[in-house]
Amino acid sequence: MKFTEEVFAPHMRPITGSAIREIFKLLGKPGMISFAGGNPSNAALEPEVISELAVEVLAKYGTSLLQYGATEGFGPFIESAGEFLSEVGFRAGAGELLPVQGGTQGFDLLIKALVEPGDVILAEDPTFLGALQAMHTYNARIIPVATDENGVIPEDVEEKIKKYSPKLMYIIPSFQNPTGVTLSLERRKAMAQLACQYGVVLAEDDPYRDLRYAGEALPAIKAFDEEGWVVYLSSFSKYVSPGMRLGAAVGNKMLIRKMTIGKQSTDVHSPLLVQAIIDAYLRKGLMPGHLKRICGDYKKQLDAMLEGFKYLPAGTRHTVPEGGLFVWAELPEGMDAKALLDRCLENNVAYVPGTFFYVEGGHENTMRLNFSNATIEDIDKGMRALGAALAQ
Amino acid sequence: MKFTEEVFAPHMRPITGSAIREIFKLLGKPGMISFAGGNPSNAALEPEVISELAVEVLAKYGTSLLQYGATEGFGPFIESAGEFLSEVGFRAGAGELLPVQGGTQGFDLLIKALVEPGDVILAEDPTFLGALQAMHTYNARIIPVATDENGVIPEDVEEKIKKYSPKLMYIIPSFQNPTGVTLSLERRKAMAQLACQYGVVLAEDDPYRDLRYAGEALPAIKAFDEEGWVVYLSSFSKYVSPGMRLGAAVGNKMLIRKMTIGKQSTDVHSPLLVQAIIDAYLRKGLMPGHLKRICGDYKKQLDAMLEGFKYLPAGTRHTVPEGGLFVWAELPEGMDAKALLDRCLENNVAYVPGTFFYVEGGHENTMRLNFSNATIEDIDKGMRALGAALAQ
Repeated sequence: MKFTEEVFAPHMRPITGSAIREIFKLLGKPGMISFAGGNPSNAALEPEVISELAVEVLAKYGTSLLQYGATEGFGPFIESAGEFLSEVGFRAGAGELLPVQGGTQGFDLLIKALVEPGDVILAEDPTFLGALQAMHTYNARIIPVATDENGVIPEDVEEKIKKYSPKLMYIIPSFQNPTGVTLSLERRKAMAQLACQYGVVLAEDDPYRDLRYAGEALPAIKAFDEEGWVVYLSSFSKYVSPGMRLGAAVGNKMLIRKMTIGKQSTDVHSPLLVQAIIDAYLRKGLMPGHLKRICGDYKKQLDAMLEGFKYLPAGTRHTVPEGGLFVWAELPEGMDAKALLDRCLENNVAYVPGTFFYVEGGHENTMRLNFSNATIEDIDKGMRALGAALAQ
Repeated sequence: MKFTEEVFAPHMRPITGSAIREIFKLLGKPGMISFAGGNPSNAALEPEVISELAVEVLAKYGTSLLQYGATEGFGPFIESAGEFLSEVGFRAGAGELLPVQGGTQGFDLLIKALVEPGDVILAEDPTFLGALQAMHTYNARIIPVATDENGVIPEDVEEKIKKYSPKLMYIIPSFQNPTGVTLSLERRKAMAQLACQYGVVLAEDDPYRDLRYAGEALPAIKAFDEEGWVVYLSSFSKYVSPGMRLGAAVGNKMLIRKMTIGKQSTDVHSPLLVQAIIDAYLRKGLMPGHLKRICGDYKKQLDAMLEGFKYLPAGTRHTVPEGGLFVWAELPEGMDAKALLDRCLENNVAYVPGTFFYVEGGHENTMRLNFSNATIEDIDKGMRALGAALAQ
């Protein structure tokens, strides 16, 4: 019998991968300045340090680092990751922290634990494409909730909770992907309260938190979670290395236990070598100095991009993020960032059209601009090129 | 609102983790000889080699190894893993091999691509517990198929295909977990033919293949797959390191593409550092000598265990595996390996009662014995202790 698409589960057939992958394929062109990606800067990565730590932990732990480990995680890493996250405003106790393959796996395991086909998940609109794709692979029904310059709007969330009885809410509270916006303190309290009041699990995905270049650090939503409905997802991808794939999920014991069960049959455990390397990184106290250095660099890049908006068409609006990797722009009404992309690529500058990040599309005049993968000079040059292409 | 079990998806509520984990907790007792685990021997692990390779690949690839990678995998590893697997009787072309977090993730992604709640999966009876748990997390309906000393019985598979229209079949062809049995050449051909004839995806999970101590290597089921219905799952867990979590799935392009989509939102990609280390291990030609060495050791351990059956109650039958890590025993009718476990543990010897590996339980007189985690002396001592405890 011939193998055809019909073999796949019906809900999986239309999922064909991130639309923005097609854009990424065009970035290899010589001279291209890319504001399209979401990678940390190569200058923020430290292969020599990781190499030394690899040698050190393999000498220290020997064969036990190469043997099977517990799904629950490598003991020393559970401890140091819990300590690292305590700055966020809560302290994970025993059985409350699970090592995961980046925040991405944390969210995937959460959906696996909670959602049946057709169950509703509330998502900020716009939001992270990878999270939307995860929701689709579990055949969830995604309901968008409104956001503004202070993040997701609790009143809209409450209305949607009443109307749709969601199982899960997905929120990126700090320097959101794609908008760069940060959820205000009042709204953090309100979101924790809504999660507990209505009994809806809130996935707080916070991978950019420590990339703050201005303003005061805020406690996590989880810090106000009195009954255990918030799961905090952290990741070392944006701080140390995305290629190593390590993060941590923190939640109540029952939830972490069920996510652990899901992880058992998904990948057994996170690689011990990686857990041990990040543990050593944290215990040696390398993180504060490293974050200070990379935040200093990223701030300059962000400032250069904000400055560069002077080249963009009059009437363009943009966010002024206090951290993270992205700025969000709204071109004047009537302009179509998707249609204009080809012209910009010809002009050697790339971005991601904002429409892709909306649950139901639309918002054609928006775009996401990343500033961490170009030099100050290239950011200036790229913003000029963008302005010129858009003005044609 | 109080957080309760009611929050979880109904099919996830009864999944509480592997029953044999409880046994593993008892193995720390001093003097305990464990035939219960499934780990490779610590003597088969090479932390110094891995340490050198880590330094080498981080120096060679630098920041690109710490940056985000493609879900499709690290190019050099895709190439060397494809070459390594070509001995099995097929050659993965472009887009036909996906790096995964052990065979476990390969199977999980396959279920994700194919199965909707209630869809049927055929599984050898008995089979690997982790695979059964994965099927449960996707709310699949598991139908057992009969096996004998030559592996799964194609006639029973055909009957079940006609009766249940399964989406997927799960087969461990070499030195099966838990029985140690190897699927015969004729049956390998028959299984490939059934998969293609009826259009049922066959997951061929083959992590023990190169741990062969006797007899001739057989081509994989996949080698006879003329229309792309077989997915071959390999793993470096039993050859190099389970703690590093790396394997490879090989299948037709459409299927590998859909599994790649699933992986994108599950964990983005497998850690590049691990892919690069295993790639270097393969390219340096370390595998053949290493396999020869560990197979020599494992053969002695297997022989000691087979010899030790003389201590067991008269009428005990057992498999005589040509490789792998397990021997399967059937105690005389009426004996209950689960009920007898406590007495054996008191006598400082552990095993896993066979009933746990059956889809519908039963078969109380069976047990799985692992021989890779005890010395020759301890295997003899442990088999004596087992015989003594069972005879009481």
